[in-house]
Amino acid sequence: MKRQLHILSPVQLLNNSALFKGHRVKLTVNNVCLTSSNPPILEGECDKYQGMHIDLADGVHEDFSVEKFDLILGDSLCRWKKEGFASVWIRFTLQQGALISVAANHGFVYHHAENKHAVMCQWLDMDSPSRLPQFATHQVGVAGCVVDHESKSVLVIRDKHKRYSLWKFPGGLAELGEDLNQTAVREIYEETGVKSEFHGILAFRQQHDQPSAYGRSDLYFVCYMTPLTFDLKPCLREIEACMWMDLEELESHPQTSAITRRIVKLVKKGLGEGFNDVTFVGQEFQSIYKDLKYVMYHRGIVDDGPLPYVHSILEARRKKTTG
Amino acid sequence: MKRQLHILSPVQLLNNSALFKGHRVKLTVNNVCLTSSNPPILEGECDKYQGMHIDLADGVHEDFSVEKFDLILGDSLCRWKKEGFASVWIRFTLQQGALISVAANHGFVYHHAENKHAVMCQWLDMDSPSRLPQFATHQVGVAGCVVDHESKSVLVIRDKHKRYSLWKFPGGLAELGEDLNQTAVREIYEETGVKSEFHGILAFRQQHDQPSAYGRSDLYFVCYMTPLTFDLKPCLREIEACMWMDLEELESHPQTSAITRRIVKLVKKGLGEGFNDVTFVGQEFQSIYKDLKYVMYHRGIVDDGPLPYVHSILEARRKKTTG
Repeated sequence: MKRQLHILSPVQLLNNSALFKGHRVKLTVNNVCLTSSNPPILEGECDKYQGMHIDLADGVHEDFSVEKFDLILGDSLCRWKKEGFASVWIRFTLQQGALISVAANHGFVYHHAENKHAVMCQWLDMDSPSRLPQFATHQVGVAGCVVDHESKSVLVIRDKHKRYSLWKFPGGLAELGEDLNQTAVREIYEETGVKSEFHGILAFRQQHDQPSAYGRSDLYFVCYMTPLTFDLKPCLREIEACMWMDLEELESHPQTSAITRRIVKLVKKGLGEGFNDVTFVGQEFQSIYKDLKYVMYHRGIVDDGPLPYVHSILEARRKKTTG
Repeated sequence: MKRQLHILSPVQLLNNSALFKGHRVKLTVNNVCLTSSNPPILEGECDKYQGMHIDLADGVHEDFSVEKFDLILGDSLCRWKKEGFASVWIRFTLQQGALISVAANHGFVYHHAENKHAVMCQWLDMDSPSRLPQFATHQVGVAGCVVDHESKSVLVIRDKHKRYSLWKFPGGLAELGEDLNQTAVREIYEETGVKSEFHGILAFRQQHDQPSAYGRSDLYFVCYMTPLTFDLKPCLREIEACMWMDLEELESHPQTSAITRRIVKLVKKGLGEGFNDVTFVGQEFQSIYKDLKYVMYHRGIVDDGPLPYVHSILEARRKKTTG
């Protein structure tokens, strides 16, 4: 592998601990070398998988003309291939649309885009098949099965905008950054006006090619909830109707789905034998990534003693902020 | 609401069953009207949420110059607002990058992009907040806990490319369209050479802001598997090492994570009391969408009799194709 003097190879960069900042290595020590290199090439950061990342949206790079970008991108690719980089990633602003077509001519395709930025990528390593990871593959839907233990009834709705208008549990798509329990509480309240408390996951479903998911797959979780309020204030922009329906009536109702009937069976089992036998409960853990927490869901383990399940944590937080 | 003659409103379009094709309504009956309208506007399809979809990548639209696209997009937006459309979506090819910047000047932002296409969108209804759904929010990871009942040991690996190299279960990211059980079987085989069979879900974890997920969230499922083969052929490009490790040793190992230790506890419970008590098992259902199936996971319900769980279905298929 040919290598120009003073340019560190990806492996050298990774071995140079002074350069290691989180997941990418900034080529700051090479700035002079890179900018004075002839021909000039694009400056970027290297990741631990030998990927080169160029951020044209960082406000530092110059405003390239189509012609100049065409030239510098060609020279850069030539150099990166010689240097042994496996992949290249470029981030563009909305105003750099013309440069996207230039990059496409050099073999780049879209990796993802949202709001004001697009990211393109290219696999350079001809000796192995592309290992470029795909962007997020799933949307997440969350429904809440709100069980009134006293009346043995559950909260159900009928959707608007549906060809098959069935009685089902209130729910909707998770917003980015929302925990499953938060989505359930929010959607139930938005659609029906009922405030509820999360206890665990009754079931989930994986479905591919779901219409309206833009070609992505769908994971749909059904949560076991109990009501904190009972008055119904249906949001008529989103749903056609909502009601508290007796479990037996829902199970035999002609206008409901297989998934709803299955959930009714699980709820009846829970009411009979305890919900710890049918749900996965959640617990918060500290991630190995600094400052990150995650919630892990599984069958409750009795010999662990009373676990700080999510709803208890949330309850404690709620009391702390309100009390 | 003003409305030009011969242009159907979104509501009229939806009520016109002859026009209804799947989820969108093609404005073919209006072609003449639209193309001969003065000023000309972009042709598209209307969805049931009063969204207008323009596909500039369909090979039918002309190759717009930046100037012409600027003009026709301005006129089109003017008309769509008058017509009461709530949102507009435009799909572009890689070669139409310059038009993306034009659309941005008219208020469009990226909704998503992948490979050779980008989709931009704009919310038009000033009387209500944007209800544009977000693109897929989660990547999905799947790990397999392969349990050898005889030796009370499990298959573990140590990752390459990790700052914290812990003993953990083999696994990786789900490819688009793959069921959880398929990802588990594939990743275990790719990383360790061990063939295995899927039985159920032991636990899952939701984590936001995960590094290397491009700002998206992560859902990570741990599956209960049993081995069909035992010989280890580690893929040294992906992992550093793999081995069969005694459950007790793994539980007390200093180089393992909280999530792995928790899984060991669940496996020990499963070995003692049966795995039906700790896992969610999967069953295939027919979707309400024609030709689509989905897999639903929940605690096994004994009174349903022997359910056609996923692994049994797969087993039957395997026998059918090999026998």
